[in-house]
Amino acid sequence: LRIPNPESRIPAAREFDLIERIRRRVASRADVVLGIGDDAALLAPPAGQLLVAAQDTLNIGVHFPPDTAPADIGWKALAVNLSDLAAMGAEPAWCLLSLSLPLADSDWIDGFLDGFCALADTHEVALVGGDTTRGPLSVSVAIHGFVPPGQALVRGGAQPGDEIWVTGDLGDAAAALAAGAAADARLRARLDRPTPRLAAGFALRGRATACIDISDGLLADLGHVLAASAVGAELEIADLPCSAALARACSGSQRWQFQLAGGDDYELCFTAPAARHSDIAAAMHAAATPATVIGRIVTAPGCRLSAPDGSDWQPPRRGYQHFSEVSE
Amino acid sequence: LRIPNPESRIPAAREFDLIERIRRRVASRADVVLGIGDDAALLAPPAGQLLVAAQDTLNIGVHFPPDTAPADIGWKALAVNLSDLAAMGAEPAWCLLSLSLPLADSDWIDGFLDGFCALADTHEVALVGGDTTRGPLSVSVAIHGFVPPGQALVRGGAQPGDEIWVTGDLGDAAAALAAGAAADARLRARLDRPTPRLAAGFALRGRATACIDISDGLLADLGHVLAASAVGAELEIADLPCSAALARACSGSQRWQFQLAGGDDYELCFTAPAARHSDIAAAMHAAATPATVIGRIVTAPGCRLSAPDGSDWQPPRRGYQHFSEVSE
Repeated sequence: LRIPNPESRIPAAREFDLIERIRRRVASRADVVLGIGDDAALLAPPAGQLLVAAQDTLNIGVHFPPDTAPADIGWKALAVNLSDLAAMGAEPAWCLLSLSLPLADSDWIDGFLDGFCALADTHEVALVGGDTTRGPLSVSVAIHGFVPPGQALVRGGAQPGDEIWVTGDLGDAAAALAAGAAADARLRARLDRPTPRLAAGFALRGRATACIDISDGLLADLGHVLAASAVGAELEIADLPCSAALARACSGSQRWQFQLAGGDDYELCFTAPAARHSDIAAAMHAAATPATVIGRIVTAPGCRLSAPDGSDWQPPRRGYQHFSEVSE
Repeated sequence: LRIPNPESRIPAAREFDLIERIRRRVASRADVVLGIGDDAALLAPPAGQLLVAAQDTLNIGVHFPPDTAPADIGWKALAVNLSDLAAMGAEPAWCLLSLSLPLADSDWIDGFLDGFCALADTHEVALVGGDTTRGPLSVSVAIHGFVPPGQALVRGGAQPGDEIWVTGDLGDAAAALAAGAAADARLRARLDRPTPRLAAGFALRGRATACIDISDGLLADLGHVLAASAVGAELEIADLPCSAALARACSGSQRWQFQLAGGDDYELCFTAPAARHSDIAAAMHAAATPATVIGRIVTAPGCRLSAPDGSDWQPPRRGYQHFSEVSE
């Protein structure tokens, strides 16, 4: 038996200081009956809506490079969770934050809160509880929102004939990760400060037949939709949306790899009947969210990729293998 | 810029297997509209109740010894969160689980689920979502329950003249931690498998004036009640509940240290008017929960300890200093 060192917990006084720093910075909401400072938060859900809940953790060296600025870690930890609500068509409300830190560093916390609170305030999300502990740097957020019964966007509703859409551009974050210190600043910003597509998700209520956010790469995440819906897909590589920065950084099959198999985009991939194309386009325009049709849902399982010259194409990276295992 | 290795994420196929193993083991509830398997869970809160939410993380070497069995880690990760609901008088319902693992080890997961699901099933808690990531072993749980408006137990209601109660025994877990491999099995079981006092918390609705769970030690946690209530306390050391195993393991000031400043007990400390003593005793008996009066709330701030010989006593360990900083 090895005994953990009791001193390796953050000392109570320092933890108290960290929690006070957090409490002073967070905004509240009328539906928060009791926020930070007791054993649990007391919250008043709106009558007649479903609670939508998710939890995602970011670990140093796995989900963000070790040199990531504290403010960017704060932003991203909340963004990836808000992205899950966006993919459900939910309206965000509350979050819990569990923060493991090697040191009770007040400067680090203040920087972290700059990014976290900027995004929380933009979307009127109240931080209502959680904990701070000593450990390798890790940030776990539990997010809560609402959606009316029957209006949530789920993975299982895609139908043959549906168009497949994605918001924004694909591949920027993966290209930034691969380029390291040489990464273009616009690509790196997409890795560090992803935009949760909440307005788009909200606008897709009653419109999309299926929806997911792209955290592990388009093929992997679309694969979950195909598996849940028991359908297949055909994608046009030439139609994959590409930022100007990505177009400058790389081309051809390297670019396709980033767009198809790169993670951390946090765009939405959704399906909708082709007959609703104009309605979807108008809804995305109203939500100020670029959106592009990249292919269609078919009956045959699997995902077929058409290169710009019309030939079939297989991405060499094994992300696609995992996708195949999941979807077929 | 150092680039994290994309391969250091758990490969998608292995993560899918882990999630499938989890999904197969967890029970559902009628109020879970959509559980594990989409971007977020869809839940139906009961009308007219408040949602009670908390999140606590356990890190290896900080919150449990590295040799702790996977089943005990699973149990404890849920228990410490259920303990927060107990301290609010809440009825548990749903949880999210974020699991960071150095390896996608299916045997480890199965063991973890043995402990986690045993406790979840006992209290009818449904695991509805979360994530699995690669990283140093860390378990973060977000817990959700309900309480009628106005009936939650909070920290700020203690009044001069109230009796101070604790459930169960104090100090066992700290004594096990200090004894390491030589620890008595009953003490070690209290460290590894704490009992969340949900029935007691439920029974204290409308009875206790303040309540908290003892995770950081009696003095530290009672200190939060005193600070929130702007009162002080007098404790009788002779009245601190002591298990037979702790009495055999140590005596005198060493035992008092464990009882007063040891963490990980996960008992409840609560206050109630002295005039309600018989009612509280009957309610605890009905909840099958041992409970003991250990002192009283006074107007003067701080916490005075009376040794069995009637003299004042100061614990030497600095846990008390933190408590003083917090409460005075």
